[in-house]
Formats: sequence, C-alpha cells, structure tokens
Amino acid sequence: MTPGDEVVVALDVGGTGMKCALVRPDGRVTHAERHPTGAERGPEAVVATILDVAEGLAGTARAAGSTPVACGIAVPGVIDEARGVAVWSANVGFRDVPLRELAEKRLGLPTALGHDVRVGGLAEARLGAGRDTRHVLFVAIGTGIAAAHVVGGVAATGAHGAAGEIGHILVRPDGPRCGCGRPGCLEAVASASAIGRRYTELAGTPGTAAEVAQRAAAGDELAGRVWRAAVEALADGLATGQALFDVDTMVIGGGLAQAGPGLLDPLRAALRERLTFHREPRLVAAALGDEAGCLGAALLALDTLEEESR
Amino acid sequence: MTPGDEVVVALDVGGTGMKCALVRPDGRVTHAERHPTGAERGPEAVVATILDVAEGLAGTARAAGSTPVACGIAVPGVIDEARGVAVWSANVGFRDVPLRELAEKRLGLPTALGHDVRVGGLAEARLGAGRDTRHVLFVAIGTGIAAAHVVGGVAATGAHGAAGEIGHILVRPDGPRCGCGRPGCLEAVASASAIGRRYTELAGTPGTAAEVAQRAAAGDELAGRVWRAAVEALADGLATGQALFDVDTMVIGGGLAQAGPGLLDPLRAALRERLTFHREPRLVAAALGDEAGCLGAALLALDTLEEESR
Repeated sequence: MTPGDEVVVALDVGGTGMKCALVRPDGRVTHAERHPTGAERGPEAVVATILDVAEGLAGTARAAGSTPVACGIAVPGVIDEARGVAVWSANVGFRDVPLRELAEKRLGLPTALGHDVRVGGLAEARLGAGRDTRHVLFVAIGTGIAAAHVVGGVAATGAHGAAGEIGHILVRPDGPRCGCGRPGCLEAVASASAIGRRYTELAGTPGTAAEVAQRAAAGDELAGRVWRAAVEALADGLATGQALFDVDTMVIGGGLAQAGPGLLDPLRAALRERLTFHREPRLVAAALGDEAGCLGAALLALDTLEEESR
Repeated sequence: MTPGDEVVVALDVGGTGMKCALVRPDGRVTHAERHPTGAERGPEAVVATILDVAEGLAGTARAAGSTPVACGIAVPGVIDEARGVAVWSANVGFRDVPLRELAEKRLGLPTALGHDVRVGGLAEARLGAGRDTRHVLFVAIGTGIAAAHVVGGVAATGAHGAAGEIGHILVRPDGPRCGCGRPGCLEAVASASAIGRRYTELAGTPGTAAEVAQRAAAGDELAGRVWRAAVEALADGLATGQALFDVDTMVIGGGLAQAGPGLLDPLRAALRERLTFHREPRLVAAALGDEAGCLGAALLALDTLEEESR
C-alpha cells in the first residue's frame, strides 16, 4: 500500500448543506459529494446524518481500494478543537456536542473537529491564495463575517475556540444593531446580508448583495452608495486586523468575494488609505472556492495524526 | 560553574531612559541600573550608549563571578526580531539599525532584539500577572497604547514586526486625529496623553491623566466624564481584541494602570457589557511594574539561546 492510497474522510457542515470529500494527504480530492444538513430536524438528527455520511464515505474509500486514515469535520460556531466539542453553533443547533468522540466511536478513525472558517483559512493559507506566505488572515464574508489567522500553517483557535470573530468588532458606533446584540459590529454593516438589507431599506425594493454589486458596477447611484459604505466598513475592519496581526496576505473568501475586482479593487484602495505606518498586506481573493472547508478539515485531521505520531 | 551563575545582560531602551539589569534564567534580577537614553543626541550616540552600557553590565557580571551567556535588548517602535533590526523607532530616532549584530560584535554574546511592549508582555505572561494561563493579551497604556498577544509563552511578532498595535485600531470614527495621521484611533482617545489633553481642553486648566483619575475618584464631574469616555473607548478596544484573539487573561500595564481599581473596575464592567457570545477574559493589572521590559528582553534572549542549541 503506497501513501497515495491513503485518504481522509472530510465533512464541512453548513447551515443548509454538507460538503463532503475524500482527500489525499497532498490535498487532492478523489471523491466529493453533497448532502442537505436538514438543520430543521434538530441537532440529534444532524449528528446522525453527519455520522452516516462519514461512515458512507469511509466505505466508498475502501470500495475504491483506498484506506481511510482519519476523519476531519468542520462546523460553524464556537468550536473547542482541543476537546473536539461543538460548543455553540446556532446554524445547526449544536450546543456542547462531543462530535469528535462520536465520530471516532462510529468510524474507528482518529478524528479532528474544526471551525469552518478556521479550517477554510488553513486550506487557503497552505494550498490556496496564501500558499507562499507565512502570515495569512483569511476573511470569509457571507451571511456573517469571520476570520482565521494562520501563521506558519497553523490557525489560531483562541483560549475557548472563539478566535477570529472579526465580524463582531466595532466599526460604526452609531451603526445598526448586530445579530449578536451589540450596535455597530462589522457584520451588521458589511456582511452580504447587511448589504442586501440596507439596499432594500433605502431602495424600497428587494436586492441581494450580489445584485447591489452588479447594479453598483452598472452605475446605479443608490447601489453604488450602499456598496461603498460596506467597502469602507470592511476596510476599517481589515485595517484593525492588520494593526493587530500584521500579516503578509489577506485572503477574502465567502459569498461576497464572488464580486471579484468589484469588491477587491475598491477594498484594496480603501485599506491602503487607512494604513499609516503599517505595511500593506497583499489583498487577494480566495482560490479554493467552497471546497476550502473540506480541504481544511482534512488538513486538520492530518495535522492531528502527525502530532499523535510524534 | 552552576547554572545559577549564568546571567543575561538585559536592556530596555525607552524614549527617556534605559532600564538595565542582569537577569538569571529563573527571572531573578541580580543587578539593576538605569541610564538616560539621551535621544536628543541622535541615533548614533544612543547606539553607542547602548553598547557601552551592555558591555559595562557584562563586566559587572564577570566581576561578581557570574557568566554572561546572552544579551537581550528591548526597543520601542517597529522591530524586526527575526533580522534583529530596529526598523523604525520614533522615540529614539532609530531607522533600520541592525542592533543585534552590533551588540553581538561588541559583546561576543548571542543577542536578541525585541519590541518593548512585546517583551513586556512576554514577561507578564510567563512571570507576572498572566503566569497561570496560556492565552494572554498584554496591553500597555501610557503615552501610546500597544499590545502583545502571547500564546504558550511566545509573543506574536507579525510578518513585519508590527503586530499588536491596538492603539491604532478605529474606535471613534468621529474622534480626534491620532499621531499616526488617522482619525479615531484608540490611542487618540484613551491613552494617558489623550486623557490629559482632553481634560485640559475642556477644563481650561492643565491636568495629567493621573490627575484626571484622582479628580474623577474624588467626584469631580468633568474629570469623571473624561475618564469614563476613555474607559468606554478602552473597553471597545479590548472587546475587539477579545473578538480577534479570544484570550484567557488581559493584563493591563503602562502608566495608566497605576490608577489601579479606578481603571480596572469600570473597565471590567464596560468590557463585560460589550461581550455577547465571547467569554469574558480575566482583566488584571500588570504585576512586574517597569521591570517587565528588562525581564522580557532576558527571556527573549534565553529563548533564542535555546532555539539555537536545538
């Protein structure tokens, strides 16, 4: 059996869907599948689906002559990676779910549990847009906004598994109230949902962030104003990130990054304006798309294997 | 020769004075002395003084029967620890000074160059107020405001030696302009100098931050208002720090920390108000006083020795 025959069972569990894959140690995906999360069925049903899907993937690997060596699972929310527990995950209804232990029992494989954005950042830093640099901040901008600070290929977890919550830093003291309860959070001003909400409010007709981006690019005055306000707030957030982390590269991912240069170009200019004595980081779009979470879950599982074999 | 006879030559170079010591590997200070920095004489004269003082300390160690094994130097500004270069240090006029190399040549000792607040944080995290916890944010509030994020006894430097600049995060978009050129930085609102400036402006009579703290405690209405505004801004800054770093312990040092419970108590309450899903860190005053920089410079030098011997 050559190392090429080894694969990691990887799952990236989101609020609506699960992205699942078999990933080789070099990051190559040999098999991919998707399943609905079905969060409306409650946390126990979601856990059962995760375990069923993981077991199915291990079976698929074996049927293809590969050996599953580990399992990596990524979940949103507050994740205690050290204990392998999904502490709090609103999107999938988890509250203190010992997912690592459950998966290890069911699969008989060493398992790592990671935070979705943190493992996404791990993958972008090691295999994607941050590949050639040591200090990377990955920022995922979608329904919410969160970040992963990756140094030397290791993502910071924080003391309680809650590091990188850049969506919940204050940028507009007089701004709208955030879902977390505080006013003026970056997420409340510049997430895809906040942009859509703001436009809808001002225009009187519904518009998603993607539509706002398109209309702004087409010269629509109101859409342009809403888009610029979000970009300015994002630049404030990234400038704060740079002041605290001092990275080489910022990788922008999540749904909003699909606006491409329509987001990256003005964001880069606005960030540059805000940096005085700090070095400007390279600002780039994520390279791995929505596979980043799966790849990162696999990397985390391989890291854990390696640590245990030391 | 027992290990107890080994000492590190440690210097903490500030804008006005240098704190210098001989430090044993266990953190005990066997000798301390202070010298004026004399920054007005220009960077070359300051470098000459640093080297003279360091050589003198090594001589003092030998005269007492100890063996100097390394030298640690802490300097403010942007410090590239990996290259041992003081990249930019306004207070002492340094610009790309290869201080590590200069000291190694002069002393014949392995030398480490560190950032003053970062090594101060290192000392507080390992020997001081953060001693029993793994994730520590040290925040020094004085003329300026800066932080050191220390995890597992290692302080983050960033990609260009500029990590931890919590003084230059946006907290008040409509606030006063900061020395760095941007409006609304934490430092421009809540540093000791900003507090003194604001009070002087409103009261029409001069008052330092220490006086504002005293007058606020004594019930002076205006001083109380100025103090509370600073505390609120600091709490915003610390809440941002907690969102990004998720630490166990925040250690508050620098001149403003001398206000003791007059600062720590309202700051703790204001921080608590701002944390929603994040765990509240323990908020404590620094324990090592103005020796932290010297101790941290020694720790950094010892870390470097250890790495090299691996």
